[in-house]
Formats: sequence, structure tokens, C-alpha cells
Amino acid sequence: MRIVALAGGIGGARFLRGLKNVIGPEDEITVIGNTGDDIHLFGLKVCPDLDTLMYTLGGGINEEQGWGRADETWSIKGEMKAYGVGPEWFGLGDRDFATHIVRTQMLAAGYPLSAVTEALCERWQPGVRLLPMSDDRVETHVRITTGDTSGSAAGSGTRAVHFQEYWVKLHAAVDAEAIIPVGADTAKPAPGVLEAIAAADVILLPPSNPVVSIGTVLAVPGIRQAVSSSPAPVVGLSPIVGGSPVRGMADKVLAAVGVETTAEAVALHYGSELLDGWLVDTADAASVAAVEAAGIACRAVPLLMSDAEATAAMARAALELAEQVRA
Amino acid sequence: MRIVALAGGIGGARFLRGLKNVIGPEDEITVIGNTGDDIHLFGLKVCPDLDTLMYTLGGGINEEQGWGRADETWSIKGEMKAYGVGPEWFGLGDRDFATHIVRTQMLAAGYPLSAVTEALCERWQPGVRLLPMSDDRVETHVRITTGDTSGSAAGSGTRAVHFQEYWVKLHAAVDAEAIIPVGADTAKPAPGVLEAIAAADVILLPPSNPVVSIGTVLAVPGIRQAVSSSPAPVVGLSPIVGGSPVRGMADKVLAAVGVETTAEAVALHYGSELLDGWLVDTADAASVAAVEAAGIACRAVPLLMSDAEATAAMARAALELAEQVRA
Repeated sequence: MRIVALAGGIGGARFLRGLKNVIGPEDEITVIGNTGDDIHLFGLKVCPDLDTLMYTLGGGINEEQGWGRADETWSIKGEMKAYGVGPEWFGLGDRDFATHIVRTQMLAAGYPLSAVTEALCERWQPGVRLLPMSDDRVETHVRITTGDTSGSAAGSGTRAVHFQEYWVKLHAAVDAEAIIPVGADTAKPAPGVLEAIAAADVILLPPSNPVVSIGTVLAVPGIRQAVSSSPAPVVGLSPIVGGSPVRGMADKVLAAVGVETTAEAVALHYGSELLDGWLVDTADAASVAAVEAAGIACRAVPLLMSDAEATAAMARAALELAEQVRA
Repeated sequence: MRIVALAGGIGGARFLRGLKNVIGPEDEITVIGNTGDDIHLFGLKVCPDLDTLMYTLGGGINEEQGWGRADETWSIKGEMKAYGVGPEWFGLGDRDFATHIVRTQMLAAGYPLSAVTEALCERWQPGVRLLPMSDDRVETHVRITTGDTSGSAAGSGTRAVHFQEYWVKLHAAVDAEAIIPVGADTAKPAPGVLEAIAAADVILLPPSNPVVSIGTVLAVPGIRQAVSSSPAPVVGLSPIVGGSPVRGMADKVLAAVGVETTAEAVALHYGSELLDGWLVDTADAASVAAVEAAGIACRAVPLLMSDAEATAAMARAALELAEQVRA
């Protein structure tokens, strides 16, 4: 069985680790990773979602924080502060820096991001084929209102900040007015992406952020069309449980695209052209009927990835729903 | 008093630290640092001599090894090995990496090396004005014979390797046939270099390598001429004591330019057009007459930088000889 998953960072990575535990030895997983939260920091190309996927699936992740490296050291961060070179708000440990140094060096030598990712995975052996959604530069920006909160005469206005600045520095504490995947409109899917989707037996949307993770992957011209026209069942898992994001601040970016923070609203946001099946948490069992009324098969199962077994059960439920949809 | 010193790495840096201890509050030191041993590693611009000068004079040097940072961590080195990315033979610690990351980022933003060096020194406060010899790329290469030592049919030939490969990887264990400061012939002195030399009251050549450190600085068109035509006394300190380099493998590169490894031969290599005074170690007192016969004032004093006081005494002796030459 050939499984294709579109994924963001922490939630997607943890779900995929569970998925790896329930598939058979002949099954193959291709992950199409979001690169819209990539950012250039300190002159280096940082790909947070690809790295979280790679480290999590390859056994190098910091389990507590969900991103970055285990057994990390922080010498460079201290040096940057001493040099007065920012930003200080983005946490890059020394081991993590090494990945970005290698990546940046390979990109500068002319290798596309997909080839660089493959080379990095030679070391990490994540057990999946990890593809960036595109080799072209796409960076998600968020339009915010810079309110007159200080009472100064500067007044208020809107400005666009990099997604990482919105998410990590501002903690999404101000409303997002628009999500702009800069560069997505002219980006091409990375080599292998459309082919993997076309050859898939099952397509999964893990409980990643539907706007800035999976939404950005789908914004690359050709990918949404390939997924929706695929004969394979497409099954998603709600990242919203009981009206709140399981982790992160997805409500802020859902609001920016006019979607309520409910499992049902996210399903309808993806839509029945894209989704064949949708898993909601048992806390949201009441929404199953409405999702099914929209033409999407829906089941309520526990959706908290509290441990490996719970995560594996979610993956099993997704594959089972895919088989039911196919039949 | 305005003192200008041409300097390489460890020897030059330690001498200058001694010099700082003997000058008055009104005296100023400008250091023109060798950049011929600069190298691009991991996509980053590494300037070993500038950094050794900066760290040593700014209090951040690893005292035992003479290069690199105190309290260093080595996470990145381990990661590079895990990624299979070399070279392994060049020791870059995490804190040191931070310097190269900041430098590379600034260079990529368009700042010349002299401006970058000034910015880095804002943090380090080395107590001297540190100028790279040139903002243009100069990299010293060494021509070696790749002998048929394996007995293979490949035979022997010559090839040029980067100075760092010769020095750090090969430990100068093979003979150097030529020293080639690639790019020096078209390099321009960095802003301030010729002005500092022209305005100098004393010009010092610390006991740095006369070929690959001070020789490379002098190879930048205009610098040798500026030094030799300066009205200021030019005084050098022999890096050769008792027929051996005090540290490093200077004998190998001296042989490549046809100079014997003696304090006298190095003085004559610089020549009386350049040098007004020369300090040899007391072990080489017998060579004083020959150096003076060549038109260079010469004194024999202890030249081992065994501690701060010994180093300060050397600096004092150099300044005293400069005054004697001037009078």
C-alpha cells in the first residue's frame, strides 16, 4: 500500500510516527512536507516543518518541546546575543544549526531543496520518503493590525510579518487578518510530489494546521487538483478537538480565513471535493451527522496523541475509514 | 605614539597582548592582519588569523591551544560527522561557528571584510584597531609533490593545496615547493591600511611566520612599498630561535622560498629596504654582527613568550630598538 500524507510539523510528525507503527513491511509512506514556514535566519535556510518531520521520524527530536534536537547545546545562541545579532526569539540549538549549515551549503552549491532533504534523510533514515512540497521558495506571511495599544500618535495600520514572527515571536497574540503564502502562486510541486499523489492508494491529512501547514501545501498549484482528482480515498484527522486546537494557535489562522474553530468547520473548509473521510474526536461526535451531510464520511474516535498506542490507534482508524470509503 | 603591526595568528596575537601591556594610555596600535589563511568551510567564511587576534586580544581565546574559543562546545562537529560532511580535519567549535555565521551573513549582505571585522570587534574590544590586510579574497596555496609513497602506479606529480590543508591536515609533513598567495597580485589594501602605515610612528613585525603570515600581508600591492618608504622605524622580531621555529612549522615554508631557518636568514629575507631593526634571541647572539653588516640594527634579547612578563619585555625591547634606530 502506498500512503501519501501532507504534513506540517509537530502534529503531523507525531501522527506519522504512529502510522509507521501500524503499517505492514510492504507499505510505503511518502510525506509531502510544508515549506511555507521556512525562514532565512542568520543567513541560513531553516525548514522547521521538514526538520521536525525528519528529527521526529529519525529519532533525534526533543520529545518535550516537539521541535529541535535532543541533547541540544546552546552555545551559538549565547554568542549571537553577545554579538547583538538577532532574532533572539527563534530557538536554534547548536545541533540544529548544523542541519541548517549543511542545507544552506548544499543549496548554495546548486542542489534543489528536494535533493538536500533526501541527503539529510540519508543520515536520519526517517522510514518515509520525505519530499518538500516545492523546491521553490514559499514563505507564509501574516497580515496583522499594528494597533495603537501604546496610546502613541503613531496610530494603527496593517503590516505583514513572516509566519514565524507571528507564531513564535508574537505567539499569535494579535489577530491575523490574512494568511499570504508568498511565492506559492508561482511555485511548482517538487519532483515526485504529483507522481506520488497519482500513485497513492491512500491519501492522509494528519491533524496538522489546516491553514498554514496543509493549506499551504494545497496552495502550490497542481497539488490540490492532484489530491482531489486522485482515485485514492482521502482521509483527514481533525486538529480541532472540542472547539480548541489540540496544540498551537490554529484558531487564530482559521479565523483569518473565516473558518470557525470546530472539527466540523475544518472538514467543510477542506470540502467534499478534497475529503472522502474525516475523523473527529469523540468529544465532537455530535458533528458527525453534519459532516456526513456534506458528503464526507465521518467517524468519531479519540484524537489525542497522548502516547504511542493512542497515536497508533488514530492511524489505524484513519486507514480503516479509508478502506470503508473505498468499498 | 601610533604603532602599526603586521601580524599572523598565534605568535602575533600573543606578542600584541604583551605590547598592549607596555604602551601608554595615549598610544594606539593598529594591527594589519593576514587574511591569506582564510578559507571557506561549510559555506562559511573563516578568517583564522583575524579571529585568533580578536579572541586573544579580546579575552576569548582558548589559552592552551592558542586558537579557537575558551569554554568551547563541539556539538556541530559531531553533527557534521554524522551527516558525513567534511572536512573533519579543521577544528571549528560551536562558539567559533557563531563568529563565522555572523561574518558570512554580513559579507552576504554586502559589507566588506574590514567593516565586518570592525563590527565583530565591537563585541570583543581587542584594544587595538584590527584591519584585514585586504577586503579582497586572497588564499594562500602550497604546491606539494604527491609522491609515489604508496608504490602505486599513479606515480608522482605536483598539486596545490590550500594552506590550511597543508598546515592543519598534512601538518606540513611534506615539503612545500612553492607558496602561492592566490589573489594577492590583484588585491587592494583594505581601507585604512596604507593610511595607518603612512601615519605610523613605529612599525613592528611580530614573530609571526615571515612567509605565510607577514609575507602574505607584504604581498598585497602597495603594502611593502608603504612600509619600506615610511619614515617610521621598522623593527621585527625573529620567529626563529636557535635554528627552529618557536612554534609551527615555519621551516617548511621558509625552505619553499629558499630561506634558511635561522634568525639571520629571515632578517636578510625581509632585507634592509624593509627592516631598520631586528631582534634575535640570546641563543642567536652570534648572528647579530652579520645582520648589522647587512644594514639592519640588531639586538639579542630573550624571545620566548613563556609568560606575560617575558612577552612584555620583548615588546619593550622592540620599542627601545625602534627609538635607537630613530635617533
